[in-house]
Formats: sequence, C-alpha cells, structure tokens
Amino acid sequence: MSAIVGVVMGSDSDWPVMSDAVEALAEFDVEVEVDVVSAHRMPQEMIAYGEQAAGRGLRVIIAGAGGAAHLPGMLAAVTPLPVIGVPVPLRHLDGMDSLLSIVQMPSGVPVATVSVGGARNAGLLAARILGAGADDGAAQLREKMGQFQQGLRETAQAKGA
Amino acid sequence: MSAIVGVVMGSDSDWPVMSDAVEALAEFDVEVEVDVVSAHRMPQEMIAYGEQAAGRGLRVIIAGAGGAAHLPGMLAAVTPLPVIGVPVPLRHLDGMDSLLSIVQMPSGVPVATVSVGGARNAGLLAARILGAGADDGAAQLREKMGQFQQGLRETAQAKGA
Amino acid sequence: MSAIVGVVMGSDSDWPVMSDAVEALAEFDVEVEVDVVSAHRMPQEMIAYGEQAAGRGLRVIIAGAGGAAHLPGMLAAVTPLPVIGVPVPLRHLDGMDSLLSIVQMPSGVPVATVSVGGARNAGLLAARILGAGADDGAAQLREKMGQFQQGLRETAQAKGA
Amino acid sequence: MSAIVGVVMGSDSDWPVMSDAVEALAEFDVEVEVDVVSAHRMPQEMIAYGEQAAGRGLRVIIAGAGGAAHLPGMLAAVTPLPVIGVPVPLRHLDGMDSLLSIVQMPSGVPVATVSVGGARNAGLLAARILGAGADDGAAQLREKMGQFQQGLRETAQAKGA
Amino acid sequence: MSAIVGVVMGSDSDWPVMSDAVEALAEFDVEVEVDVVSAHRMPQEMIAYGEQAAGRGLRVIIAGAGGAAHLPGMLAAVTPLPVIGVPVPLRHLDGMDSLLSIVQMPSGVPVATVSVGGARNAGLLAARILGAGADDGAAQLREKMGQFQQGLRETAQAKGA
Amino acid sequence: MSAIVGVVMGSDSDWPVMSDAVEALAEFDVEVEVDVVSAHRMPQEMIAYGEQAAGRGLRVIIAGAGGAAHLPGMLAAVTPLPVIGVPVPLRHLDGMDSLLSIVQMPSGVPVATVSVGGARNAGLLAARILGAGADDGAAQLREKMGQFQQGLRETAQAKGA
Amino acid sequence: MSAIVGVVMGSDSDWPVMSDAVEALAEFDVEVEVDVVSAHRMPQEMIAYGEQAAGRGLRVIIAGAGGAAHLPGMLAAVTPLPVIGVPVPLRHLDGMDSLLSIVQMPSGVPVATVSVGGARNAGLLAARILGAGADDGAAQLREKMGQFQQGLRETAQAKGA
Amino acid sequence: MSAIVGVVMGSDSDWPVMSDAVEALAEFDVEVEVDVVSAHRMPQEMIAYGEQAAGRGLRVIIAGAGGAAHLPGMLAAVTPLPVIGVPVPLRHLDGMDSLLSIVQMPSGVPVATVSVGGARNAGLLAARILGAGADDGAAQLREKMGQFQQGLRETAQAKGA
Repeated sequence: MSAIVGVVMGSDSDWPVMSDAVEALAEFDVEVEVDVVSAHRMPQEMIAYGEQAAGRGLRVIIAGAGGAAHLPGMLAAVTPLPVIGVPVPLRHLDGMDSLLSIVQMPSGVPVATVSVGGARNAGLLAARILGAGADDGAAQLREKMGQFQQGLRETAQAKGA
Repeated sequence: MSAIVGVVMGSDSDWPVMSDAVEALAEFDVEVEVDVVSAHRMPQEMIAYGEQAAGRGLRVIIAGAGGAAHLPGMLAAVTPLPVIGVPVPLRHLDGMDSLLSIVQMPSGVPVATVSVGGARNAGLLAARILGAGADDGAAQLREKMGQFQQGLRETAQAKGA
Repeated sequence: MSAIVGVVMGSDSDWPVMSDAVEALAEFDVEVEVDVVSAHRMPQEMIAYGEQAAGRGLRVIIAGAGGAAHLPGMLAAVTPLPVIGVPVPLRHLDGMDSLLSIVQMPSGVPVATVSVGGARNAGLLAARILGAGADDGAAQLREKMGQFQQGLRETAQAKGA
Repeated sequence: MSAIVGVVMGSDSDWPVMSDAVEALAEFDVEVEVDVVSAHRMPQEMIAYGEQAAGRGLRVIIAGAGGAAHLPGMLAAVTPLPVIGVPVPLRHLDGMDSLLSIVQMPSGVPVATVSVGGARNAGLLAARILGAGADDGAAQLREKMGQFQQGLRETAQAKGA
Repeated sequence: MSAIVGVVMGSDSDWPVMSDAVEALAEFDVEVEVDVVSAHRMPQEMIAYGEQAAGRGLRVIIAGAGGAAHLPGMLAAVTPLPVIGVPVPLRHLDGMDSLLSIVQMPSGVPVATVSVGGARNAGLLAARILGAGADDGAAQLREKMGQFQQGLRETAQAKGA
Repeated sequence: MSAIVGVVMGSDSDWPVMSDAVEALAEFDVEVEVDVVSAHRMPQEMIAYGEQAAGRGLRVIIAGAGGAAHLPGMLAAVTPLPVIGVPVPLRHLDGMDSLLSIVQMPSGVPVATVSVGGARNAGLLAARILGAGADDGAAQLREKMGQFQQGLRETAQAKGA
Repeated sequence: MSAIVGVVMGSDSDWPVMSDAVEALAEFDVEVEVDVVSAHRMPQEMIAYGEQAAGRGLRVIIAGAGGAAHLPGMLAAVTPLPVIGVPVPLRHLDGMDSLLSIVQMPSGVPVATVSVGGARNAGLLAARILGAGADDGAAQLREKMGQFQQGLRETAQAKGA
Repeated sequence: MSAIVGVVMGSDSDWPVMSDAVEALAEFDVEVEVDVVSAHRMPQEMIAYGEQAAGRGLRVIIAGAGGAAHLPGMLAAVTPLPVIGVPVPLRHLDGMDSLLSIVQMPSGVPVATVSVGGARNAGLLAARILGAGADDGAAQLREKMGQFQQGLRETAQAKGA
C-alpha cells in the first residue's frame, strides 16, 4: 500500500520535532512518506510536491517549519488536500513567529494549525481526518481513534488517586 | 440529506464571525447544522453534543469561541472526529487569548486551528477534509476545491495588471 | 475529617508545580485531596468531579493546567464552588498561553487566577477563602492568616538591615 | 445589615467597568460598599482601608485598577481576606499591563485575578467565595449560584436551535 | 525606459498601504511597475514573477503582504535580486503577525524588512539600493538621496523653534 | 557623611541584580544605604520608609522588584523624591511583567524606569539626578559623569579597529 | 530666568502628547524650552542639542519619540544630564515598540522612562529631579511636590464616599 | 581593493553573532571592513562613521545591535547608503526589543532589517544589493547569487529522500 499522508519539513533540523507525527500515524497503521521540502531553498520542488500530492495518492499533508514558516501555507496554495501545519520553535521567540506565520493564512487558503512543536497532534489530526471519510476504512480509523481516546483516559485515570 | 458538518459557537454573539464558515460550506453544497453550544454555560450539553456527533452522522465539527476559548478543545476531547477551531476576537487582546486557548492543545487531543476570525477558512478546511476521503463524493469535493482555487487565481490575476 | 479543598491537575507532570499548593494548605491544617483530572483525556470524569465536588464536602477547588489550559474553567462551569486556577508553564511560551487560557473566562463563570506557576499562592488563596466564612473555623483561619502575614513580615525584616 | 464585600477602584474613571461587580452582587442580595481608594494617590488611606476591612465586617474585597495596577496586591498585603483583582484596560496595551501587574504576585500574597475588564465575574467570584463558608447563609448562596448557573444554561440553550 | 523596481502585493486591498512605495520612487524618478501577485492565490504566477524578475530588467522587488505574509520570502527564494518586505497590518494583531512572517526568514534567503505599514520607507530603501551601484546612475541617485535627507532636515528644523 | 541614595529591593533574592546599582554609585563616591523593603510582606514599613526618606536626607530612591512589582510605584506615592525603578526578571515572562508593573504608572506619580535587570543604569541615573542640582557638589558630579562617559568612549574605541 | 528643562520631541506630531509635560512643569513654575529635534532627520543638530544642553543651563531633558524611538537614548549618550524618555504611541503596536526602544538602554547610558504616552509624569519626574538638589530652590520644589501629592490625595478622597 | 561593505556593531560582545555576516560576504569575495561603533558610547564617532562611509567607498553598511538598538537607524540617518540592521538578542526579551528598535523606523529613514540574530542573511542581503547594480561586477555577483541559491537547493534536496 502506498503512502496516504505526506510528512514534510523545511529542514532536516526539524526532524526531532516532526518525527512525532510519523510515530503517531504508525500507531494507527497509516502509511506515511517523509521528505525535506524547503519552501525557501527549493521552491520549485516544493510547488511540484504540492501540485502532485493528490495525484500521487496522498490524502493529507503534514508540514512543519520554523521562523517565517511558509511551507504549510504554500503547500495549501497548490493542493486541494487538507494541510496540517506544525510551528517548529527556533532558538528565539519561542515559536511565536512560527505559529503566526502558519496560522494567520488569508481567506481562501486554510492551514490546520496545531500547537508549537505539536507534531504528535498533527499526526493524530491526520488520523482523524482520514477517519472522517464515508468509506469502511474511515469507519475503522474512527473506531480506532475512539479506542485511542479510551486509552488516554485509562492512562490518565491510573495517574489519579 | 442530513448535516455532515456541525458549526457550533460558544455564544450567539460569535455568529457574525462564524456565519462565514456556513457560507463557505454552502458554496460547496455541504450540508451544515448550526448551534450555540457553550462549554461554560451548558457543559453537559456540550459534552453530549461532542459524544453524539459522529453517531448522528457529522463528519467534521467547526467550533468558534473567544477569550478562554475552551469549546473546540473540549469537543475534540469527546469525539473522534476532526475539530476545527476558530479563535473569535473579543474586545481586548485582539484574539491572541482566543488563539492560544485553542491552538496550544496538549498531546493526544488535536484541534485544527485557523486564523483569528478565520471562519471562512474553517469552512474551506472542512471541505478539504471531506474531500480527503476515499469515496466518490470525496473525489468530487476535491475536484470542486481545485476549481475553487482556480477561481481564486483568476480573481487575483484580474486584479493584477 | 474529610477534605475541604480539592487540588487537581491535568497531568501528573504538573505535580512539581502543584505540590506547593498542598504544602501551603498543610501549613494551615486544611484537609486536602489530590487528583489527576484531565479535561482533555478524561472529560466525563472531569465533569463528574466538578459536579460532585460540593456534595462531597469540598469547599474550594484548586486546578492547575498548562498550554490550552481548560481544566479550571471547565470545573468552574459545573460547580458553584470557587475555583482557583494555576497557569502551569510548559516548554514554550513561558506560561503565557496557560495564563490567558485560564484568566480570560467569559462572563458568568469566573476562575480565580494566580500567577504563572503560583501554586503556593493558590493554596494561600484557598486558605483566605475558607477564612472568609461566617463561622468560628473561618475566624480561626483568618487569624492564622494574620499570623502567617506577620511571619512574612518578620522574615522580610530580618533580611533588611 | 452591613456590607460584607468592599468594591474599590483606583479612580472613578474605573467605575464604568467596576459597576458590573456591584450589579452581580446585587443579583445575589449581597450587601456591598463601594469606594475610590487609590494606591498611588492616597496610599495611607488605602493601607488603612485594607487593615480595617476584616474588622469592619468585610469578608471579600474586589479591587479594580489599570496600568501599573497596584491596588489589589497592596490590599492583599494588609488584609487576611481574599482579594479579587480586576484588570481595568486603559487606552494603550489593551489591559495586558493591568493583568500582569495584578496576577503576577509574589509568593505569600495571592490575588484572585479575573479577566481584563471582567468585573462581573469578580462579583460572581465573591458570591462563590461567600458561598464556600460552613454556615447556613453560605449554603443558601451556594444554592443560589447553582440556580444562577442553571439560568445561564437555559439562556444559552434558548439561543441554540 | 523600462521598470527597474517591481512593487507587488498579495491583494489589491494592500494598495492604500503600498502606494506610498510607488510615490516615494516617483520622487526619485525611478521607473516602477506595480502588480497584484498573490503567493497563496496564484502561486505559480508568483514563482514565475520572481524567476523572471531579473531577466526582465528589474533590479529590486518590493513586496507587501499581511497576516501569514509569505509573498516577500517566497519571491526572495526564486530571485537573486534584493527583496524588500512591507508588513501590511490587518484587522487583528496590529501587523505583528505580518512582521514576524516577513522578517524571520531562515538562513540563506534574506528579506529586507521595513516597519509595519512602512511602504514609503520601502520605496526609499529601494532608491538607496539602486544608489549603491558602481555606475554613474547610482552616483546620481546617491546624491539625490543626500539632497532628500537635507530636505528632511530642513523641514524638521522649520518645525523646531 | 550620611547616605543620599537609598537602594531597596523587594526580596534579598533581588540582590545579585541590584548590587550593580550600589557598585555604580560607589564609582561616583555617592553614599548609599541598602535595605530589603517588601511592598507585599512589610507594607507598613515600606510606607514608612518612603515617608521618611526625604527627612532622613535621602535625595534619590532606587527600588528593584520582580513580577507584580509594586515597590517602586508605592514608594513614589509616599515621597516627593525621584524614584528609579528596576524591573527584576523572574523565572517566567522574562521581566516583561516586572517592566509593565513599574513603568505604566498612572498620571501624578512617576517612576523613572530603567531596562529589565538594568540596576547599573539605575545607579548611573541616580548620579545624573544628583548632578542636576544647582550647587557645587552637583557640578562636580556632572563633571565626573562627563569623564565617565569619556571613559566609555575610550573603552569602546579601543575595541574597534 | 532661562529654561532649566528642555522638552524635545522627534516630530511635531508628538506635540499633543508632549504638551502635557510642559503643562505639568508650568504648574511647578519651572522654566521650560520646547523644540523639535529629530534623531533621524536632523541627527547632527540632535547631537549638538545634547552636547550643549548642560552648558546652556538646562538641568533635565525630556524627550518623546515613537516607533524606533532613538531620541531619548541618543541625547543621553551626549549629555551628563538626566534624560527622561516618553514613549509616544503610534498607529500600530500601541507604543510597545516605542517603550522597548527607549527603556532597554545598554549599560552605561540610562534613560528615565515613563509610561506609554505618559508625558505628564515626565514633567512631574523632572520636577522631582530638580527637587532632589541640595540648594534652597530644590527644597522649595520638594515641598511643592509634597503639596501637589496632598492635592492628589484630596481629589481622590473627594471621589470616594 | 578597499572595503565596500562596512560591518559595525555596538559592542564587541555582538561579534559571535555578527561574524556570520562577514563570513557570508567572504563567500562572495566581497571586501569587508569590521568595526565596533557604539551609538551610545561613542556617538560622535558613530555619526562620523556614517557621514564618511559613502565617501570612503563603502556601498552598504551592516549594523548589529541589541536591546534599545539605535545603531542601524542612526547610521541610516547620516548616510545615503542602504543600511542593513541585525537585531542581536540579549539576555532578556529574546531579541524582540532589538527587532522593534531597528525595524520600526519613521518615514524617511529606512533600515533593511533581517531576523533576530540573522547576521548571515545580512551578509547575503548585502551581496544581493551589490548585485543589483547596473555594472559588470554587479552582474557577476548576481550570477554568483544564483549559483549560491542553486547550492542551497541541492543541499536541501540531498537531505530529502
């Protein structure tokens, strides 16, 4: 089975953050592909990646970037797929620049933004999105998400008294 | 056909912002239901709304709230569906409190956050999510989104020289 | 004697911060119960905790949480008791997200917010609240708080010349 | 019956904000006194106000101030009573200065802070605090707060579909 | 003579801000072309604009955008020309999002950022850049800039005593 | 000769920051007294300190505090002397809370605020203030400040090429 | 009698803010001179103004500026006199840029910063500084400041009950 | 060949940041001179540096400074050359003060601002500016910049799959 979620990042230095997204999707047995696609250093390839994503069978894109983080928004501009943006915190400003650069998209081109450094949640959001479909595979994923949430609950309860 | 996207808001004073989401989904012929569901004033009903959403046939939830905006995150806690959060700006702090209250969710429970006041983008993101499915309806929506993006381009080009 | 202050937190990782509240209340011989009650991972139990708090004899709730910190506000929504919120600082944004998520509550549902990481003050505030009652126990607590403040003064003076 | 809640503000220009606290307490039939007590323009009187508050029968103090808002914290330093702080927004900085000046109190001297401009919630918090007592009057107030919350719920529900 | 400075903006709603850049360059008799080139609505054309800019004879690009403002950075990624970014303030956040999205570019791809709404300064910076050349035209521009600064001084002095 | 500058701080934990003020004044042979005077833990003594400062021969007060930093402003309220405020950075929020709590004083009661952690500059500012007098001692201090500035210049130049 | 306080501003558009400083000093019968002295538009004259200030008999300088507000700090660099900085709020960022540009001075060159738009307090601070001298005129000013503060108190008290 | 880019900084403690600018220009074989020129400690020399820069053959100035960072703006005020400002982050506030002090210049005097700590980009921007000229040297630099960007792309691609 080929990848249905593409996880991309602006730089390989984002990997320690972004690997959480891949791991979360692995827990849901979702096939993932990972790539470095820099909006600023390889803009043409980035555009091509976005334009071809749906045709290659991807159904969700997760894009992480830091600072003036343009990757999620630019991909959202060239694909009809849902794009999830992960603000990667850099050395200064604690990710506030990354967050605003990703979330404050203009009308017409949405990016589904998660928390600063929240790549695990990006993976889980992708699983929810795939589980929102009308087909059987979606229903199975949705059920799996319900079980995952039940697991969260049990772990949290176990930590209580 | 019954609603597949639920648009909820913490207060009816959020409607002037949130109506943009409904309008965007109408452009994509997506069936929508609208409700006031306050996390703080009717918490039990809010929980019930979230718990029953998937079973009632909803596939995406769009939730808008301002200030200490807990509605999107609380709904995400009780549904396996993707939840889109719209930070509604209030009189003070320009929506920064709403944004951080929605986007900074803990690991395990993602909210797909859009820009401050970005309800139109929330609607478009819901359409993208519905278009990410594996079935024919999704493919049609995805194509429609491509046409919509083509329309954005043409309008923008017409404004250029 | 059973607990009259409930100290809850969204995650056991909040304990190093929140333990200060418990310690402060111990100095005032106030009976406390401690629990992990996550708004996002165990929402139904969280709602139940709040709904039952007054009936179980609790008179004040102290709730600590970080990031999109919904626990204090959600508890305040389902109990008539005073709820004290402690913004727990996370790795990014220095607790500003936690602070705004807790303090910016909508009209109708107040949370008594203390400083970022200020769990000791949350405990002292609970003692003040318990000391605001009309009964003898309250009068004793109020006097004890006066002595505590006198102690603060003497310690501070001893540090001066 | 004499006042049991003191509502004070740094300047009479804070009254349009602070009157909401008085109104909220009137809904709960709580006897209130109102005064202008400026930390910076009449510091000795401010100190005296705080020192005498408990002896005069006050059980909660609500203090509103803007900018470098020192009134709530200074009162908390000279009374064992719970002090609720209301950050009043001024012309610049949108109340962020008021909020931080009130909420970031040092260990030992808590202020129960509410949202920027949130005087109504300050009144409701005072009612909750008075309702946390062990006597009958407290129990009545607590029940009244439950009814109030039920009213919030019904109003919110009526706004839904 | 053909244009040597390209002034572009993400939306025609940016024109009231961006027209100041054009006006400033007119004062220096620099030939300018103006266009709407949206990074998000017409990404391929935007890339093409940047790639062709140097070849078409442009020597400086001024790009204005608001919110998650990607236009200046994306153009800088596809041209070797200096790109000046103008953060256009939108309805919320006072241009802070625009500023951070433009100025916080990653290493390798600089954008020369001016103040929020500072399009006039963008024009003047372009004139300074053109005046930094080694040829005669540059020397003339540089001298003109000196005269302009002399004019600023005289106007300011006239306002003094 | 008795002290003419009083250096006070809210807590002895502020000493590592505040000692720079004392050291700077020692370089100008200005007699200094140092004390811990907490606005929140010993408010009556703090008020007394301010009220008596001028009578005791102090001519400038330097006050450092962190978080909800009320010491400089409260002293300014009870003395006609110039009060210099030093925002001491605490563990969270990087001193922004301290800065706003000190600088945003209401009309009528000024505090001369220096940078976050800028105690050395507070000392130098006190020296400038003492040098602004009409007497001979002031003239000498003013000249000394001129020499000090000359020294800064020479040190800086020596670091250049 | 010649002026002993110089009030300068970067632009005549700052006058509506800065006139409050002049008015406050008039209440204390302090002789003032007013000028537009732009750090950026007439830098040489600005430097000359600062260098000559003490020699011309000025004893305090009040400087107001907005945005990247360099005037107060640059004057402080070329005079041994105390310089009071007034952050003038501009159209965007609510004076936060002005405040940080003025208050965050490097070690060695202090600026006595007042609140955003706080020109009246700048005038009062100048009066306090002049009152800190060892001569008779200073003693008179100090006494006058005490009376002024008494007036503030009486006005505030009159507003109370 | 003599230097055509001047790299200056307010303090030698800025060198670890600013050396990146020098290194970047060395990669483009651009002749550079480096100096410590403090706006606040040696203002006259700083003014002289700026006034003489163009006459000495400099064509671009890169200026780095932290906190109330006045160096770039003051140099821009006394030279017709393009000035690039590098916000150097200090111990507190993460460079936000430096950024605003540099970028928010008033109309008439632009500074080309790069990211917090972005000295390498300042060097690259200087190279782009020098490459914007009409002469042969500029054309060569422009081509070199194209090759540099090609190198960025290849390095980034090599990091991808």
